Amino acid sequence: MERGRKIYEGKWKILYETADPALLVQRFKDVPMLAASASQAKVPRRGAMKNQISAALFTLLHGNGIPTHFVRVLGQRDMLVRRLEMIRLEVVVRNIAAGSLAKRLGMEVGTRLPVPVLEFYYKSDELGDPMINDYHIKAINLATEDEVRTLSEMALRVNELLTGYLKDKGLSLIDFKLEFGRHKGKILLGDEISPDTCRFWDTKTNEKLDKDRFRRDLGGVEEAYQEVVRRIEGR
Amino acid sequence: MERGRKIYEGKWKILYETADPALLVQRFKDVPMLAASASQAKVPRRGAMKNQISAALFTLLHGNGIPTHFVRVLGQRDMLVRRLEMIRLEVVVRNIAAGSLAKRLGMEVGTRLPVPVLEFYYKSDELGDPMINDYHIKAINLATEDEVRTLSEMALRVNELLTGYLKDKGLSLIDFKLEFGRHKGKILLGDEISPDTCRFWDTKTNEKLDKDRFRRDLGGVEEAYQEVVRRIEGR
Repeated sequence: MERGRKIYEGKWKILYETADPALLVQRFKDVPMLAASASQAKVPRRGAMKNQISAALFTLLHGNGIPTHFVRVLGQRDMLVRRLEMIRLEVVVRNIAAGSLAKRLGMEVGTRLPVPVLEFYYKSDELGDPMINDYHIKAINLATEDEVRTLSEMALRVNELLTGYLKDKGLSLIDFKLEFGRHKGKILLGDEISPDTCRFWDTKTNEKLDKDRFRRDLGGVEEAYQEVVRRIEGR
Repeated sequence: MERGRKIYEGKWKILYETADPALLVQRFKDVPMLAASASQAKVPRRGAMKNQISAALFTLLHGNGIPTHFVRVLGQRDMLVRRLEMIRLEVVVRNIAAGSLAKRLGMEVGTRLPVPVLEFYYKSDELGDPMINDYHIKAINLATEDEVRTLSEMALRVNELLTGYLKDKGLSLIDFKLEFGRHKGKILLGDEISPDTCRFWDTKTNEKLDKDRFRRDLGGVEEAYQEVVRRIEGR
């Protein structure tokens, strides 16, 4: 599949057109558009690892009835995906208190939540991606009520599937963020599923194997991402 | 009804026991416990005006099928209320963008929302009363799913009733905050409904007749509250 015109470049991804208007190439970047710190720019093979992890997890979900934008891997850092009209929401599911939830509710990081918690955030750089609810979504017309129900059901199902799958690999799924879009009248899971969008902790040691290594300057980012690849590939 | 032991004192209200364990006296204070600014402390008859307004609005709601804690006015600043086991939520309904909603969604203050927006906030001084959703409420066990449904339905019905009633008085109901509690197995509307917990704007001039006069140092607070009393009393 030949890469065509670049139609989008975000912090960590680029989208290119293809000969088929319904399909795009999604490229995972090694270096972010605006590196917040020098360390962020220095993870060799980051894009390739994220491509591998996302491809494996999208394949797992597809095999379990979750429609996704993923078609197939094209190259080290590229995957072929269906073109989506993106919904401007981040859909977050949490199993263990961490990050902003721990802060919002005053819970100790690592506390297991009695039920999975689902949250919606409005994707808006200017507004700082604020948390919103079903009423806000309706008031600013981000998605219909039916779509919100579909997103919620899909996100909670994804949580069940990923949690079980990753547990077998010795990884605890603490929380994750999904993005969805519309494609030919249907809602598909889009974006990526990787250590940049999920919190993965080692089941036994609780070692962080995700983006928090950057945020907290823990170092060993390449090794952590490589460890996630290794476990998912079952090596 | 004789006032007994003080069992609670908040910023703006005091609760006293009565001879009947199911009933309390709710006193509206003129001066807050910790005045953020000197101007806050200088509104004569504030407690009495809030008592009058709350009593009138609770009576209206009661007459329209909304169960409330209000029993009757006892004195200038006191009302007799049913004793509630309070639910630690602030239930906010908004018709027009203002305050934190305008900020959160990047909307101009004064924009009419296409649908009323309902929000839950976790009552916690330490955490700064964060906005939360149904999943958080369940996870930290603030209320059952049935109770959340009841609160939502009651709050939206209160919005319909108050909006219509106040419109006839030349007041636009921009937004408001309610608190609820449990009493003998039933959810009752508690707390107060006053210019301290609602945004009221003059329908014609959009003049603010509520707590925003403090927050924005607009002055004329006593006159504004008195104007709300005058309109609600129909004088």
